[in-house]
Amino acid sequence: MTTRNLALKNSYRDSVELMRLSQELEQMSGVQQATIIMGTDNNKAMLETAGLLTEDGKAAEANDLIIAVRLSPADDEAAIMNRVQESLDSSGRESEANASSNQPRTIDGALAAMPDSNLALISVPGQYAAYEATKALDRGLHVLVFSDNVSIEDEVELKNHALNQGLFMLGPDCGTAIINGVPLGFANAVPRGRVGIVAASGTGLQQVSCLLAAQGHGISQALGVGSRDLSDQVGGAMMLEGIRVLNDDLNTDVIVLISKPPGPMAQQQIAFALRVVSKPSVVCFLGMDVQAANIPNVYFEMTLHEAAKRVAGLLGDPTHATSPVLPSPEMTLLQEISDGLGRDQRYIRGLYSGGTLAYESMLFLRDLNFDISSNLDFPLVNSIDDDAERTHKLIDMGDDRFTQGVPHPMIDYRQRRERIFKEATNPEVGIILLDVMLGYGSHADPASELVPAINEARLLASGAGRQLAFIVVMCGTSDDPQNIQKQAAELTAAGAVVVPSNLQGVSIAAALSVGDLEMIRGWSQ
Amino acid sequence: MTTRNLALKNSYRDSVELMRLSQELEQMSGVQQATIIMGTDNNKAMLETAGLLTEDGKAAEANDLIIAVRLSPADDEAAIMNRVQESLDSSGRESEANASSNQPRTIDGALAAMPDSNLALISVPGQYAAYEATKALDRGLHVLVFSDNVSIEDEVELKNHALNQGLFMLGPDCGTAIINGVPLGFANAVPRGRVGIVAASGTGLQQVSCLLAAQGHGISQALGVGSRDLSDQVGGAMMLEGIRVLNDDLNTDVIVLISKPPGPMAQQQIAFALRVVSKPSVVCFLGMDVQAANIPNVYFEMTLHEAAKRVAGLLGDPTHATSPVLPSPEMTLLQEISDGLGRDQRYIRGLYSGGTLAYESMLFLRDLNFDISSNLDFPLVNSIDDDAERTHKLIDMGDDRFTQGVPHPMIDYRQRRERIFKEATNPEVGIILLDVMLGYGSHADPASELVPAINEARLLASGAGRQLAFIVVMCGTSDDPQNIQKQAAELTAAGAVVVPSNLQGVSIAAALSVGDLEMIRGWSQ
Repeated sequence: MTTRNLALKNSYRDSVELMRLSQELEQMSGVQQATIIMGTDNNKAMLETAGLLTEDGKAAEANDLIIAVRLSPADDEAAIMNRVQESLDSSGRESEANASSNQPRTIDGALAAMPDSNLALISVPGQYAAYEATKALDRGLHVLVFSDNVSIEDEVELKNHALNQGLFMLGPDCGTAIINGVPLGFANAVPRGRVGIVAASGTGLQQVSCLLAAQGHGISQALGVGSRDLSDQVGGAMMLEGIRVLNDDLNTDVIVLISKPPGPMAQQQIAFALRVVSKPSVVCFLGMDVQAANIPNVYFEMTLHEAAKRVAGLLGDPTHATSPVLPSPEMTLLQEISDGLGRDQRYIRGLYSGGTLAYESMLFLRDLNFDISSNLDFPLVNSIDDDAERTHKLIDMGDDRFTQGVPHPMIDYRQRRERIFKEATNPEVGIILLDVMLGYGSHADPASELVPAINEARLLASGAGRQLAFIVVMCGTSDDPQNIQKQAAELTAAGAVVVPSNLQGVSIAAALSVGDLEMIRGWSQ
Repeated sequence: MTTRNLALKNSYRDSVELMRLSQELEQMSGVQQATIIMGTDNNKAMLETAGLLTEDGKAAEANDLIIAVRLSPADDEAAIMNRVQESLDSSGRESEANASSNQPRTIDGALAAMPDSNLALISVPGQYAAYEATKALDRGLHVLVFSDNVSIEDEVELKNHALNQGLFMLGPDCGTAIINGVPLGFANAVPRGRVGIVAASGTGLQQVSCLLAAQGHGISQALGVGSRDLSDQVGGAMMLEGIRVLNDDLNTDVIVLISKPPGPMAQQQIAFALRVVSKPSVVCFLGMDVQAANIPNVYFEMTLHEAAKRVAGLLGDPTHATSPVLPSPEMTLLQEISDGLGRDQRYIRGLYSGGTLAYESMLFLRDLNFDISSNLDFPLVNSIDDDAERTHKLIDMGDDRFTQGVPHPMIDYRQRRERIFKEATNPEVGIILLDVMLGYGSHADPASELVPAINEARLLASGAGRQLAFIVVMCGTSDDPQNIQKQAAELTAAGAVVVPSNLQGVSIAAALSVGDLEMIRGWSQ
């Protein structure tokens, strides 16, 4: 077994393209494993840990592309590496051809091609994002920075700069927005309507907008402001701006604010701002201390599900309520699943692509005094590095440690598939809880990844005489490109319980864990 | 010389009536001095200090009225006291007759007489005000509490109660408001217009609204919120509510916020609230630390005068700008006055009825490193009790220490007259600076009080070979009941310099003090 590295100088490609390339290389005979990543110090360290770094790779710099392949023994290494090189060359030519023919390579080029543009979506590597964002703001464009790894000092400066020019600066690390009906980043196909959302959490925004869509309520504007907007350093700069604009917006009747717990100062700032807002506001700051929050016309909700319900209550019954996108799971089915679990199989494994949903589950299970390990930053919770197998686990697989050099788990199910196989061999694990984020930008067919994984995991478990419960939180709408009904049907056919809200999902997981389905009787959308 | 007290059991009268009665008694032959006050412990202590308390007065309780008179020697004491008693009895009958025929004595009575009322103005003694305000709020009425001496705990509770019912709770200690064009408390006859004001300072509100009126700009709503609303305990509760309502109000284009320095937390709260307000806001928090305040569309101004100018700038030239109500003082006149002052006459005496104006002057003179004594709570300033004659003095004569048992100096000029005489004998005092607040509720003819006092003070000074400069800040409008042109003309004829803004007044005082009129050349409205 040989490891080889190729380094291509100054050759940036985005992570989705790199995923496609890695998969292509792994199809080649003689290639056991292939990883293609940029030659940053972090990535090189990761390759080294995995035993995939050679001297060629070590010499690579941050702007170089490293192709690390592990070859099957006894093959003709030189011939294989030639084919790898050819494959990369042709893909590079293709990508360049696409770029030069269809895509401007600079903001000014884009503006020349589309002079009426008023927003720049920036998705370059973090270290270049602030520079590009400044350029865009200086040209009078609103900016959405999808990239992460932008320093918080740059974020503060960019947001001040934007405010002084009356522009929005969404992000960095803004995964989701729906502006004037146009979805940006990861977003679902929701109807237009009377609800304005400002969110420091992309998946939180997706969850609430999908739950609202299921009740026939649409979105006027949904503004992702980036995961750090509500830190005390940034002070909610863009959430405040979003509140201001939605309060003035004639098409918005209810304002919804979503975040993981804000900094204590930022939280106060938002609360005081809401004092001068006349439209009803629904606030879901997961884990926020709400004891002091008594503001007329402001509704603090502890979960995304309850936030969506509150909004629906404030808006009244929509004229054209759609029927539920996903049917509620039947209690008889859940009882059957519960009966199938062994006595010792009490542990939950939550494998999340959405950090916010993982966080919500953490709060829920902590309130039930469940013993939890997690990679989420949360007081009194074990680290997943502690090898604490005899606890429940909630893993945010969108965390940097899992996504270095590979695409986000909303696009790339490989790491979750592997984790499912691993957990299936643990005799004390009974319940596997996953989120499936549908919508633009996400994996085109998650069921095609998960159904085989579920089947294989069941095989592994049944070999040891065990069954497994799969709970899938499917966040999407009937209009999403993945066809939610088909996705749900395929997963249901594989024996998974599919629900539209994370609160439902984690409730069912908890009920199965303690073997008491009374906990969830009466659950409905 | 004999001192006599009469005590009338359970006989409350308001301070303005008591002033009228005292003045009536002092007209009677044989009466040298008369003071009529409620028999509270404070008031009794004050009478004792003045040598005006006898055993009869000592026995009086808080609800009793004490009539303290000093009689000329050798008169028929019994006969005089009989006449005093008669005078009180007849005034009491008159006041009761007025009350029973015209005025309901309870909130319910008032509501029965005027069922469409939506606001209760409460001006009972402080210890009863919270109870009456609660009653009014419970009946769905907005409340303006003119009374002071309400505990801050009661204020917090009343304001929360009001917010929960969607009502305004203006005050306690709310001296001024103009609601839907109706002046309440001390307010000027200003035109209706596009400027909405929220103020924790009644005289600040009057100053700004009059300066705006002089430039042809009117008021949509002017809400006094009480002097403590921006303390950290109350947290700007009603200023925030005022901002909310004015931001929604279709008749308001610019929002003006006025206060003495708010608590540090309240200041932050207001600043954050302004982040979500789209209308331009002008903030004059006298003495506030503005270094961190960079909010788009929010203008922080350091003086009331500059705040009014900023508002006018934001509104643009009004269609029907009126000419200045008061002409600017001529430099030749000021030079003449300056030349008349002796070398040693450098000290200023600011005798203010408006605490906010006194505070503004304090800030101005402190910036010039003037050495100041004051009864205002201000860091590094001498107390006026320290007998620090060789400093400038800024005295808020509306302070409790001056108003116990007597009317406010906006109504009653006696204490200021006496102070003018006292200062006229000080060889190092050259400049006497006064505010004259016109408008509803204020003294009907301030010139009739001040012109004789100025003349007498000049006589006293000229006996010692000195002249005196009088600077009068006259806060009013052409439509005020006092006739501002007549007031200004009479004071000008007496040699006083009359200006419409306190910033102008204190600037002139400072320039005269240092003998350098270059400081104010170019001053205009």
